[in-house]
Amino acid sequence: MSGRPLDVLEESLGDRVTVRLKSDDEYVGTLAGYDQHMNLVLEDASIGAEAAPVEDTTIIRGDNVVSIIP
Amino acid sequence: MSGRPLDVLEESLGDRVTVRLKSDDEYVGTLAGYDQHMNLVLEDASIGAEAAPVEDTTIIRGDNVVSIIP
Amino acid sequence: MSGRPLDVLEESLGDRVTVRLKSDDEYVGTLAGYDQHMNLVLEDASIGAEAAPVEDTTIIRGDNVVSIIP
Amino acid sequence: MSGRPLDVLEESLGDRVTVRLKSDDEYVGTLAGYDQHMNLVLEDASIGAEAAPVEDTTIIRGDNVVSIIP
Amino acid sequence: MSGRPLDVLEESLGDRVTVRLKSDDEYVGTLAGYDQHMNLVLEDASIGAEAAPVEDTTIIRGDNVVSIIP
Amino acid sequence: MSGRPLDVLEESLGDRVTVRLKSDDEYVGTLAGYDQHMNLVLEDASIGAEAAPVEDTTIIRGDNVVSIIP
Amino acid sequence: MSGRPLDVLEESLGDRVTVRLKSDDEYVGTLAGYDQHMNLVLEDASIGAEAAPVEDTTIIRGDNVVSIIP
Repeated sequence: MSGRPLDVLEESLGDRVTVRLKSDDEYVGTLAGYDQHMNLVLEDASIGAEAAPVEDTTIIRGDNVVSIIP
Repeated sequence: MSGRPLDVLEESLGDRVTVRLKSDDEYVGTLAGYDQHMNLVLEDASIGAEAAPVEDTTIIRGDNVVSIIP
Repeated sequence: MSGRPLDVLEESLGDRVTVRLKSDDEYVGTLAGYDQHMNLVLEDASIGAEAAPVEDTTIIRGDNVVSIIP
Repeated sequence: MSGRPLDVLEESLGDRVTVRLKSDDEYVGTLAGYDQHMNLVLEDASIGAEAAPVEDTTIIRGDNVVSIIP
Repeated sequence: MSGRPLDVLEESLGDRVTVRLKSDDEYVGTLAGYDQHMNLVLEDASIGAEAAPVEDTTIIRGDNVVSIIP
Repeated sequence: MSGRPLDVLEESLGDRVTVRLKSDDEYVGTLAGYDQHMNLVLEDASIGAEAAPVEDTTIIRGDNVVSIIP
Repeated sequence: MSGRPLDVLEESLGDRVTVRLKSDDEYVGTLAGYDQHMNLVLEDASIGAEAAPVEDTTIIRGDNVVSIIP
């Protein structure tokens, strides 16, 4: 998988991704949407590896994002 | 529910949402409006799960938002 | 009261509003003006619920705002 | 005095204003100029109520401003 | 290697690069993509020199970047 | 001296100015240039009143600036 | 040397420059490129005066920059 950042996000739609935030929180979920600001929509998301309670759909505002690992 | 972040907000109008802020405050309310900056209007909003006193309408400036959970 | 954030501000002109800032300061005043950045003009404004001395007109730069409660 | 924030600044030209910054510094001076970013020009400005030494003309970059009290 | 910053990134596609973030984290990986915001795509990326577990593809949001060393 | 902030900078070209930064550092130098972001060029600049070693030409990125005192 | 900030950068291409960052890190290197955001390319760069190991080419994202001393 290679290419420009938004192309990689496009290819990752429907895949499980790990999203690290500036707050050090880490979300894991299925990438259901994104936009050019890296605002993200995750489905079946949980916070961290500690298996926090699953949240259904989560919108993350892009300016909080450090990295996205498809 | 899937799609681009603002589409998910559009679909969530009238629904109860949880909004997490960079300050760690968490608002729960009915999503009554939004714009492209993720500025939000919540109705019947309260802060946190501790059932703080209900506030009628609350406008949240989008740059404070970490996540929105419809 | 519902609608997009700036519409709610428009409807709130002349009403008493509570403005929470990122500094945790809280202003209470009559909303006399605003613009698209959420820069605000408050009249008969005071800081906080502790009834600090009333200030006449106060311009608040929008990037400090967390929430506005009409 | 009411209206949009920049209109209130326009009306305040030549008046003494108090400018609060994000650093908690407070400038008092005569408003001699401004622009759309709320960059400000103060004349006969001093810092704080403690009557620090008067500075002649002071340009303040707008992104530091919390509030302006005409 | 010289030239404008984005030209240097273009020439570095396919090379191993070290990316320092504002959080002090340091990523090492093969530069697979970038855009004008310095959003980056790294392949075979690891965090730091301590050989943390290899992550496959990592998207880094540009506003976190301090420096990129090709 | 009065007028819009950038006009005051224009009038101050060639004058000694004091520039306060968000880091609390204070530069004193001759204003040799500026642009609309308040990026500045100082000549014969020194840091602070403690007469730190003189630096020849210094470019200051505007987003660090709190105030400029001509 | 005088003029607008980006003109001074243009004149400094090929010269040794000292770049101070908001993190307090200081880079010394030969200015090989820049753009309008003050993103910089340094060659033969080292961090600080302590003669840290020389790095070949370093791209610095402009929003980290406090000052550039040609």
